[in-house]
Amino acid sequence: MRALVFNNGLHYLTDHPVPTPKQDEALIRVTLAGVCNTDLEITKGYMGFQGVLGHEFVGVVEKCNEKSLIGKRVAGEINIGCGTCSYCQNHMQNHCPNRSVSGILNKEGAFAEFLTLPVSNLHLIPDSISDEEAVFVEPLAAAFEILQQVKILPADKVCVLGDGKLGLLAGQVLSTTGCNLVVAGKHREKLKILEEMGIKTEEIESINPVGAGFKPAPTMGDKGGFFGPNEFDHVVDCTGSSSGIQKALQIVKSRGKIILKTTIAESAAINLNQIVVGEITIIGSRCGPFPTAIKAIAEKKVKLSPLISNIFSLEDGVKAFEYAARKGVLKVLLRII
Amino acid sequence: MRALVFNNGLHYLTDHPVPTPKQDEALIRVTLAGVCNTDLEITKGYMGFQGVLGHEFVGVVEKCNEKSLIGKRVAGEINIGCGTCSYCQNHMQNHCPNRSVSGILNKEGAFAEFLTLPVSNLHLIPDSISDEEAVFVEPLAAAFEILQQVKILPADKVCVLGDGKLGLLAGQVLSTTGCNLVVAGKHREKLKILEEMGIKTEEIESINPVGAGFKPAPTMGDKGGFFGPNEFDHVVDCTGSSSGIQKALQIVKSRGKIILKTTIAESAAINLNQIVVGEITIIGSRCGPFPTAIKAIAEKKVKLSPLISNIFSLEDGVKAFEYAARKGVLKVLLRII
Repeated sequence: MRALVFNNGLHYLTDHPVPTPKQDEALIRVTLAGVCNTDLEITKGYMGFQGVLGHEFVGVVEKCNEKSLIGKRVAGEINIGCGTCSYCQNHMQNHCPNRSVSGILNKEGAFAEFLTLPVSNLHLIPDSISDEEAVFVEPLAAAFEILQQVKILPADKVCVLGDGKLGLLAGQVLSTTGCNLVVAGKHREKLKILEEMGIKTEEIESINPVGAGFKPAPTMGDKGGFFGPNEFDHVVDCTGSSSGIQKALQIVKSRGKIILKTTIAESAAINLNQIVVGEITIIGSRCGPFPTAIKAIAEKKVKLSPLISNIFSLEDGVKAFEYAARKGVLKVLLRII
Repeated sequence: MRALVFNNGLHYLTDHPVPTPKQDEALIRVTLAGVCNTDLEITKGYMGFQGVLGHEFVGVVEKCNEKSLIGKRVAGEINIGCGTCSYCQNHMQNHCPNRSVSGILNKEGAFAEFLTLPVSNLHLIPDSISDEEAVFVEPLAAAFEILQQVKILPADKVCVLGDGKLGLLAGQVLSTTGCNLVVAGKHREKLKILEEMGIKTEEIESINPVGAGFKPAPTMGDKGGFFGPNEFDHVVDCTGSSSGIQKALQIVKSRGKIILKTTIAESAAINLNQIVVGEITIIGSRCGPFPTAIKAIAEKKVKLSPLISNIFSLEDGVKAFEYAARKGVLKVLLRII
């Protein structure tokens, strides 16, 4: 089959073997897939993964022991637990220590004509959702994980740091709570996507914890002190930078919460005093609930099309990766069929 | 009055002015006070505080507009809020940005014949509690703060890292929950205090995140794997070292919680990936509920006398500080009367 394979470099192959589904798995013909920052990181050596990349996709079930699923359009959860450990038995297969993860860890991914996944990982996509929307189910679920972890009240002041793909999704998800929200980022054109949806944004020069660089842009109106210390009940760090959590610690209220979405290889230097004296809570946040994401898309609670920067054919996958790595680019999709 | 004053060095003075209580304050004649690590840190420049040190005390109300309190034995909460900010109005005066803190920030402390505190900060000490116990109310309350912040279930595996004063108090407090607890520390003689109370301990060579140094002492019996990765539902870091949180991240389960008690000036290098991928929660923890601590002492749920290393007179306060800074020393008390 055709596939985009990482193995001593990224290669488009036409003769990659079609995966064989196990007893509990479905064979899925992939329609459309999304390139995630994690994919870019893997091509730099993250996770040491080799094989077919990709974990954001929509496709059609081709083969499966559960006959009613055949021909159905699905998105798929990417973590496959062992099924027997205490995590799996407590519905936390996302945290199974022996898990495999599509396109990331011990399991081939979605940048190919076919992938396999356990039937229990699949979620039906209703007809009202387009392929271009469905491909966002996985990252949108990750944004909804924030609401699984933290109770956001309408009166809460919430700041999302970062205007990358995840920052824009997190902003939209948090906006559904009716909280007092601001999304802070460095890219006026990305923030504009949210502003057109009525979400308050703040253009900042840099996510610099020293403060001077974090002044509101003068044309953005009077929000004097909005980013002062002790301002926000919740701060969501989607910066992808180690300075994000430092800034978050500066602007979060005492007893406030920081939801950490940034995964980077380098360590961050963190002032423990700030955490203890302010009794701050820091919550790591990863994969989230697919049904919630699908429902939100179906109910038009989020707008995803403005997040698509470009669509490439699978054949042009290597080019797509180069494009996705460019500054200012948001979501890049790969059309498989 | 006699007082131990930090002002370009630590000095015992006999002519320090007796503080004048404000309208809402009581004048308290201090009986016994405890030296805390924070006091030692202040003498090294922490907080830039100058004046009478000390914030752990028991004393007798000498003067007060609320006449029923006069002659009563009390302990006192150390944070004094402004009374008008949103923190104060939400019963979080401990986090008031304009607070003063006895012996730490803009308010003279308890290492003196008298101190003043708002009446609302005072808690009556029942006759069944000795002065030597009552002086532990403040640090014991800080240990009980853990139970305010985190729900500990009997089936939970919990590790306290560190066998200093706070580690030993936290161990006793957590032991009241009936959880599967182990206190890990470097000092056999300190851990012995907990073992004699039936609390499981682990002697470790060092709180070294690299792992090799964190082997159980061979004579402590077979606890193989107790400190492996993904072991503990909750880890309480009382190490006072930046390596504590790194070790905590290694041994906590996915979706587990780290309660951070370590306040140190240096920053800790933290791997954000570990927090995000494991969806770990880190909770800063500081001052706690006095009534809970007083009740626990009155009901003999904690043993405090083994934690007292020495008692000095106020006159010997400078010597007491030198003694308290020695390796292996636990609580040092100052007898004021």
